[in-house]
Formats: sequence, structure tokens, C-alpha cells
Amino acid sequence: MSSVPRTIEWRNSAVVLLDQTLLPTQVATIEITTVSVLVDAIQRLAIRGAPALGVAGALGVVLAMDQCIRESWSPTQLDDAIDAIRNARPTAVNLAWAVDKVRPLVPEGRDVVFAAAQQIAAEDEAANHAMGKLGADWWLNKVGDRPLRLLTHCNTGSLATTAWGTALGVIRELASRGRIEVVFADETRPLLQGARLTAWELDQEGIPYKVLPDGAAAMAIMTGEIDGALIGADRIVANGDSANKIGSLGVALACNAAGIPFMVVAPESTVDRSMKTGKEIHIEFRNDEEVCNFAGVRTTPLDATSYNPAFDVTPARYIAAVVTEKRVYEIANGEDLNTGSAA
Amino acid sequence: MSSVPRTIEWRNSAVVLLDQTLLPTQVATIEITTVSVLVDAIQRLAIRGAPALGVAGALGVVLAMDQCIRESWSPTQLDDAIDAIRNARPTAVNLAWAVDKVRPLVPEGRDVVFAAAQQIAAEDEAANHAMGKLGADWWLNKVGDRPLRLLTHCNTGSLATTAWGTALGVIRELASRGRIEVVFADETRPLLQGARLTAWELDQEGIPYKVLPDGAAAMAIMTGEIDGALIGADRIVANGDSANKIGSLGVALACNAAGIPFMVVAPESTVDRSMKTGKEIHIEFRNDEEVCNFAGVRTTPLDATSYNPAFDVTPARYIAAVVTEKRVYEIANGEDLNTGSAA
Repeated sequence: MSSVPRTIEWRNSAVVLLDQTLLPTQVATIEITTVSVLVDAIQRLAIRGAPALGVAGALGVVLAMDQCIRESWSPTQLDDAIDAIRNARPTAVNLAWAVDKVRPLVPEGRDVVFAAAQQIAAEDEAANHAMGKLGADWWLNKVGDRPLRLLTHCNTGSLATTAWGTALGVIRELASRGRIEVVFADETRPLLQGARLTAWELDQEGIPYKVLPDGAAAMAIMTGEIDGALIGADRIVANGDSANKIGSLGVALACNAAGIPFMVVAPESTVDRSMKTGKEIHIEFRNDEEVCNFAGVRTTPLDATSYNPAFDVTPARYIAAVVTEKRVYEIANGEDLNTGSAA
Repeated sequence: MSSVPRTIEWRNSAVVLLDQTLLPTQVATIEITTVSVLVDAIQRLAIRGAPALGVAGALGVVLAMDQCIRESWSPTQLDDAIDAIRNARPTAVNLAWAVDKVRPLVPEGRDVVFAAAQQIAAEDEAANHAMGKLGADWWLNKVGDRPLRLLTHCNTGSLATTAWGTALGVIRELASRGRIEVVFADETRPLLQGARLTAWELDQEGIPYKVLPDGAAAMAIMTGEIDGALIGADRIVANGDSANKIGSLGVALACNAAGIPFMVVAPESTVDRSMKTGKEIHIEFRNDEEVCNFAGVRTTPLDATSYNPAFDVTPARYIAAVVTEKRVYEIANGEDLNTGSAA
């Protein structure tokens, strides 16, 4: 069993979060009993990752209902508090999705909402395990039933989800079968989710790993150090084009040049079949400070500006397979995200 | 004219260095009058870049001769001091090369050695300007006579050479002709030579630029933000395979996928025709600390290890052209580094 503390859970009338801003040097949890503290925790990224934010949103509604009773709020105050949670991060689809899912249950009482929130968490965890098994089977069939050397980018582990992880869930499943030799974890600039969070999760699990600068991934891949690469996704469109943390595309190009598989792992809720190709995906650009500073130290001239997209889009032609909890889409064999669906 | 202070020069009986460890937040020079202080400055990277280290080595011999007179050294003490300079960084070929070039002149007196050192600096600067012109002509012929959007990696400017630069010398030449729209400067992890040094040089010159995480280069290239990329080299072998700062290979792969030119710019002294392909190049791996720490802040778990090659090798098939002070080698048109040579 994992010794990693849970990313988010309900304990003694409080939402308890693992504070991800302190990792990897400090492992500390925050007990939250008010809506304003929860919103602040979401905004300063103490909790992050789309599936994890979904659970935070649903449990946040329970928190708001408890605070409403305790502080004798009016119905309008309760509504405003739930809105504040829902809009804490406008780009996190799962946050609004989960709040919208439990909100209609508020009139049925606090225990019904609490059960629905727990259900969202349980379903996310079950989906992660299903993806892990499907993905692990794919690698062992495709590359060989032996310990593998896999590269990943950003953080897709239990810290980004309720538990287990998406791409990192596949790695955990392979490790549980004795089929991981080493994981290469891209540090993932500018926010270092790989160096800070993925390395910490692998360390906790006792899975062998190395951290590398993002620019070193192409060399590791092209010189035969790696059997394949796998990442998560923020949005996967109908043809298989996949948006994920900036730096993913370069990993895919190197895998393609080296002739090794590149896999995308994400829940069905990440699939957006309303978009035909990746050209339709809106890419968020973030501020200069993330690139021009590091740990409070200025790294560029004071008036420097940056090119700082949060995500890039990997075209389907560079993707071997997309894995969800439902099935493996064999993109390299001509399947797309509509394959096997009723749509 | 450039307002950038010189990387290294002789002034008032001293070697005066721009301290590159303090850039970009502080612009300060160090006056050096003893061999031990010079060796320390080289080892802690106050000066770096192969051509710049060559000049430091040659001027270092003058410094040793002056100190020998001042402190009444024995001939053995003088020899040991010159050896200490020559071996301050064993991997910097130009350092030993320049010391070996001026050392036989020591019996002819201090002024002869000084003139030879100045000659090395002058020849390096002249070579840089020649590369700049050849490279600039190539881009305008190949891509179009208009302001260009070019991407570069690491630092190849006046800070790495005596003056002007190699790949950044081509960019300076294009800027002097009004043919630069914007330069994308990869930050170049782990040591951030792009963010710290290239950005500073561009800032000083008033050339428009943006700093980007290395992982964002593929997106910039694949989405049409860039007309082409150009880098320096640490070693170029006979078939055109080129070793350069880690991260260069990923830029080349993305340019190849996007169908835009990737150029290597370096002096003839960087060409090693004794090696047939890049497989023969020995790659230096560096310590974990560079990846796992930044400015005293730990970015990974305490017992993390890293994959930290200092260089990667870009295969000739991804290189459009190699530019030296002598000529442009049209690698994509089937030329190699023996083309046009007597060998």
C-alpha cells in the first residue's frame, strides 16, 4: 500500500488537503472549515489537477452547508458561497462540473450532498485504476513483458487526481507487477510539477526514478535510454489531438523520431468530441513572472517578456494510443475517439 | 555600437573580466593581477565559452610573466603557474590550445607573448564577424529578405566569445541590417544561460526578444511563430553531426517536423574532422545538484538523482547548414565538413 497522504479527504467536519505548494521539502496538510479558506487554497494551487479540483468543489458544497447552519446564513449567502467555490479557478472544468453536479441536491440535505461528493471521489479513483490496468497491459503487450524504462512529463499522479493517477497510475500499476526499471521524470518548467510532485510521489512509492531537464528528454529518447513515454491530458478532441502541459509535444516528436510509443492517459471526462481537431482548442498563456523568476530569484533582465503557453497540442499522428477507463483507442492503427462509441 | 562591456580585456596591468555569475541582475567586472585569482574565476565560471576561455588562457600567460618578475619566481614556479591556467578546466579545448600557442614565445619576452594573445582575440573577433555575414546572407536568401523570427538556445554571444558571437553574431548581423523581428531565447536549463546571458545581451543591444521554457520551443516552432533556429557548437564532426548544449536536439527535431531551417554556427577550430560521426563524441555528464537545486532552493526530493548530460548530438540529417568563418556547408544539400577542403 502507498504511504502517500491523500490529496484531499473529509475528516472531523473539515476538508483536509495536502498542501502541494510545500512539496517536496515539507509534507503538511491544511484543515479547512470555511469556504473562504478553501477558495484561497484552490487559487494559490495548494490543490491542483482537474480531478482533484472536482472533489474539492463537491466537498466544498458540504462545507458551505455546514458553515451556513453554524453562522445562520441567508439562502443568498449560501448561494454566493457555492458560486465562489465554483468560480475559484475558471479554467478548471472539473471544479464547476462537480459543483453543478451536487448543487441540485442541496434541498435534499447535507448527507445526500456528502454522499454525492464521496461518490465523485470514488468514481475518479475507480476510473484511475481501470486506466492503469488497460495502460499497463498495453505496454507489456506492445513493448515486451519485462521491466520498462518510461518517461513522463508534468504530474499525473495521486496529487492531480483523487488517488492513484492517470499516466502515473499506469506506471504505478506496472510497478505493482514488477515491470518498471526506471521512470524518467521531466522537471517540467516553468512550475516544476515533475521535479517537485512526480518525483515526490515516485520517491514515496519506492519506484526508481531520475529527474531530467525538459531539454534532455530528446537525448534520452534518441539514444535508446527509454522504451516509451506517457502523459496525461487536459483535453482530447475527436481525432485524437491532445492538449497537455507545455513540453509534451517535444516528447512526442522525439518518440516519433526514435520510433518508440507515446501514450496519452486520461478519463473519458477529458474527451471533448465536440471538437474535431486540436486547432479548435483554446490555449491559455500565463504571466511572465513564472518564466522570469525562479524560487524568488530573478533569472532574466528586469524588462524581459516571455513566451509562456500553459499547454501545447500534440497532433494525433504522433500518438500511439489514448487510454481512458473505458478502452484503449489505438490511434496509430487508425482509430479515433469516436471508435467504439455510439455517437 | 554595442554598449555591452567586453567579456575579457587587458587594462592597467590586469586582466579585466565581466563576472558572468552575477548577470543579469548585476553588471560588474573583476580586475585580476594574479594567476590564482584567474584560475579561480575560470573554475567558478565567471568567464565561460570556449573562445573566451582561449583568450583568458593566453592573457593568463602574460599575467604569470608579470607576477614572476614582481615576486621573483623561479622558472619552475612560472611553469607551474602556466600549467595551472592550462588545466583550470580540462574539457575546454580552447583554453589549453591558446596556452600552448603562446607558451613557446615566453623566452622571446613579455611583449611578444602579449602581442600573440591580442592576436588570438583579434582573430576570434574577425572570425565571428565573418560567420555573422555568411550566416545572415544565408537566412535572407533562404527564408526571404524581411525581418525574421529566429529561435536560439544557450548563449553564443559576446559573453561566450571575444566579441560579437557565433549564432548570436548572425543574429546581431541580421539586426544591424534591420532584419530581426524577434528572437526567441530558450532559457536553457539547468544553468539558464539563455535566460541569464542571451537575454541580457539582446537587452543591451535593444534587439526584441522573448524568453521561453525549453519545453515551449516545440510549440513555438510547430505553430508557425518561428522562421528558423540557430545554435552554436562544441564539436562538429566530419559528416556534420554536431554536439551542443543539452536541449539543442529537441529544437532540431521540431524544426525538422515543421519544415523550417536549423543552422549551426561555429569557428573552424570547433570542427573535428578526425571523427566520422557523432557516435564518437564523448558526452560529459554533470552532477545532480545542477538539476535538483536552484539558487539554494531544493526542487526535488532530497535523495533524487538526475539525468544531466551537458550536451546532446544533433544528427546531420536535421541540420540545414553549418556556418564557419570560412564558408557555409550546405548539409541538407548533401555537403559535409570535408566539402571544399583539400583533405
